[in-house]
Amino acid sequence: MQSPARPEMEFWYDFASPYSYLAVSRIEGLLSARQAPIGILWRPFLLGPVFKRQTSRSEPFQEVSDQQRRYRRRDVERHCTLYGIPLTWPSVYPRGSLLATRVALVAAAEGWCYEFTRSAFHANFAEDRDIREESVVAEILRSLGRPVHPVIATATSPDTKARLHSEVEAAMAKGVFGAPSFVVRGEIFWGNDRLEQAIDWAMDSFGGPARDDAAKGPTP
Amino acid sequence: MQSPARPEMEFWYDFASPYSYLAVSRIEGLLSARQAPIGILWRPFLLGPVFKRQTSRSEPFQEVSDQQRRYRRRDVERHCTLYGIPLTWPSVYPRGSLLATRVALVAAAEGWCYEFTRSAFHANFAEDRDIREESVVAEILRSLGRPVHPVIATATSPDTKARLHSEVEAAMAKGVFGAPSFVVRGEIFWGNDRLEQAIDWAMDSFGGPARDDAAKGPTP
Repeated sequence: MQSPARPEMEFWYDFASPYSYLAVSRIEGLLSARQAPIGILWRPFLLGPVFKRQTSRSEPFQEVSDQQRRYRRRDVERHCTLYGIPLTWPSVYPRGSLLATRVALVAAAEGWCYEFTRSAFHANFAEDRDIREESVVAEILRSLGRPVHPVIATATSPDTKARLHSEVEAAMAKGVFGAPSFVVRGEIFWGNDRLEQAIDWAMDSFGGPARDDAAKGPTP
Repeated sequence: MQSPARPEMEFWYDFASPYSYLAVSRIEGLLSARQAPIGILWRPFLLGPVFKRQTSRSEPFQEVSDQQRRYRRRDVERHCTLYGIPLTWPSVYPRGSLLATRVALVAAAEGWCYEFTRSAFHANFAEDRDIREESVVAEILRSLGRPVHPVIATATSPDTKARLHSEVEAAMAKGVFGAPSFVVRGEIFWGNDRLEQAIDWAMDSFGGPARDDAAKGPTP
């Protein structure tokens, strides 16, 4: 495998995940502040099928206890305040992310994934707009100057459906089990609070040996 | 309630928790570097009974999936490298923390909890010594110049057992569901990676109104 010309980081996310919203909202500022020339590979996926396969829990955004659910909300709110990120809790939570994820895959293939991703997260978590609805996704596409009907048609095609399926498989093969996750040369970083470390890893490890064994983890 | 003369932070931890080990290893350096005059209230407790009460899972340190378990090990290792903290994975994991916790409660009442806590975590996570064993705990006590037999006798008394029970109840009443957790004026911070935020909160909120409603969390 040829080495890339600059460090790269895979950014795996689910549109229903508030911590993914935090990380998507922060990454541009972080890369800019650190002058980190990292290429971001946007990897929209669905956490639901990963959870169904790996655990006895069927729903990824149901925490294990009420206490944890309350804590998570408070934690997300504190981080939004800390970072100056707007937040209006979605009136439906978790909000199904299937349509937005399919559109994001189309956007990734065409090179406008970050713009769409940022807008769809903002709609869900800052404006409480129902991104499950085609009309809401259409509004986002229009605001980005994208042709609504061709994009939606491609996003809902069997090809894109198959592509999303294989993306979920790829996430699991890499060892990704949560969102957001950042993968840098085989090393996984999970959670908005690991974004800085992932960036450091990408910068530090650039040119070094790839950690093909990292996904398997250490043996104690 | 009278306000304390300096900011205070409750530090809840379980001796089986590797992230508690990280936080215990870091706190003195953080407080010193920030010149933060925060009084730490050491709150050793057991996470097991909390999990049994709050979730369908009986074991707090079993992650929901193999992927998450592998990730957690790698994440802890990366942090130990980052912080310069020694790590030898316990050959028994999770290692039962009952005896060490009872001794820590005695130490807390007598004012030497931090020294014991640091040593017991080091024994478990840096030296792979079996802190379930009374002989190992006795060695730690001797190394700290504490009288072994009186301490062990008090630690294993019905009084201390009852006190541990009430500490677990107190943790749950506060909304603590994981370890380490830092509680500052009713605000909960969960995880080694929230320690800096907890310290900031203690310093910023000192003299401000207590957040008696924080444990209940926000209503979306």
